[in-house]
Amino acid sequence: MSLYIIPISPTEGDPSPVKSRVAQIIVPTHTFDAPPKDVDVLIVPGGFGAGPKALHGGDWEPAGVERVVQFLRDQYPTLKHLLTVCNGAGLAARAGILDGQKATTNKQLWPAITALGPKTHWVARARWVVADNGKLWTSSGVSAGTDAMLALIDHIYGKNDQGMLYGDVIKEGMEWNRVYDSEADPFAGSNNVTDVPAQE
Amino acid sequence: MSLYIIPISPTEGDPSPVKSRVAQIIVPTHTFDAPPKDVDVLIVPGGFGAGPKALHGGDWEPAGVERVVQFLRDQYPTLKHLLTVCNGAGLAARAGILDGQKATTNKQLWPAITALGPKTHWVARARWVVADNGKLWTSSGVSAGTDAMLALIDHIYGKNDQGMLYGDVIKEGMEWNRVYDSEADPFAGSNNVTDVPAQE
Repeated sequence: MSLYIIPISPTEGDPSPVKSRVAQIIVPTHTFDAPPKDVDVLIVPGGFGAGPKALHGGDWEPAGVERVVQFLRDQYPTLKHLLTVCNGAGLAARAGILDGQKATTNKQLWPAITALGPKTHWVARARWVVADNGKLWTSSGVSAGTDAMLALIDHIYGKNDQGMLYGDVIKEGMEWNRVYDSEADPFAGSNNVTDVPAQE
Repeated sequence: MSLYIIPISPTEGDPSPVKSRVAQIIVPTHTFDAPPKDVDVLIVPGGFGAGPKALHGGDWEPAGVERVVQFLRDQYPTLKHLLTVCNGAGLAARAGILDGQKATTNKQLWPAITALGPKTHWVARARWVVADNGKLWTSSGVSAGTDAMLALIDHIYGKNDQGMLYGDVIKEGMEWNRVYDSEADPFAGSNNVTDVPAQE
């Protein structure tokens, strides 16, 4: 399995004259109009490049976000898995992918992101949520994305010849204090957020 | 404070005809011959680009690693802090920076990296180690680097106007299950490593 990177830059279309230097320049491998064929797993990160406008004062989001939303809408039917991290869930929500599903997102951005998915049941006390019969994985703030990814790796690959979960092989290598329980989420409490049920 | 990136590529000088695609291309902002002036904090990551040869079968390491070692040797005297992550400690060891100091590194790479610093006391049960009167920070595997960085941020910046440690402000935003105790290191145990005292 190969990793392809089709980024949008946080500074793309940024009207600010002062560019942040606390970021690295990403070199794309593809365009959204000519993506890799037969994508199995699509990872949707968040961050300042992922919108929505509410994260930027309400009037602006990086150019290209709508193109990403359309890309997700086009890709989802043929994916095996989609995994969102942080406010990346907002992109999936805007694409309609989360309609009728349970999902979660960053707890500090809870009102802004959950508002993008009125047909979604947003689960507050969740480091990650699995929905759509195991196809749809949404995770909370960025570190939760790592625990969700390790769980997805276990889901796909299971154990190695020594009986060790592949997710555990990785967490040992990266010295990650892994969270196995998707509901072990202290940040729902520290941010005082509660479930947002689907409105219809 | 700005973030500058002076990378060496893991594939630089790589004799392998098959390039990994599980990596992104990094765009340098500077060269080692013309670095930013007055660097305050130097972060030294590890990874496959950081050597040593023992990580690549013994015969090869990426071109440019020796230049990095010299860069660290040149920079250290005027830094306020140096922080290594994972096998980045091996680069600092080769530069002589760890001589006479306590340090730690990735527990899975323990023998290969500790061998690079025979004049260093390598602390096994440590997620990170602070030495040289608070100037020298070495951390274990990559996730430990985040806990070390949050501790360094607290060390430098302390608390905000609301009395909250800046490291905690960040861990809340990234939903990081923070480790405050530098000696809370389950990976020393899972890798059965023990201290390596300085040989002289």
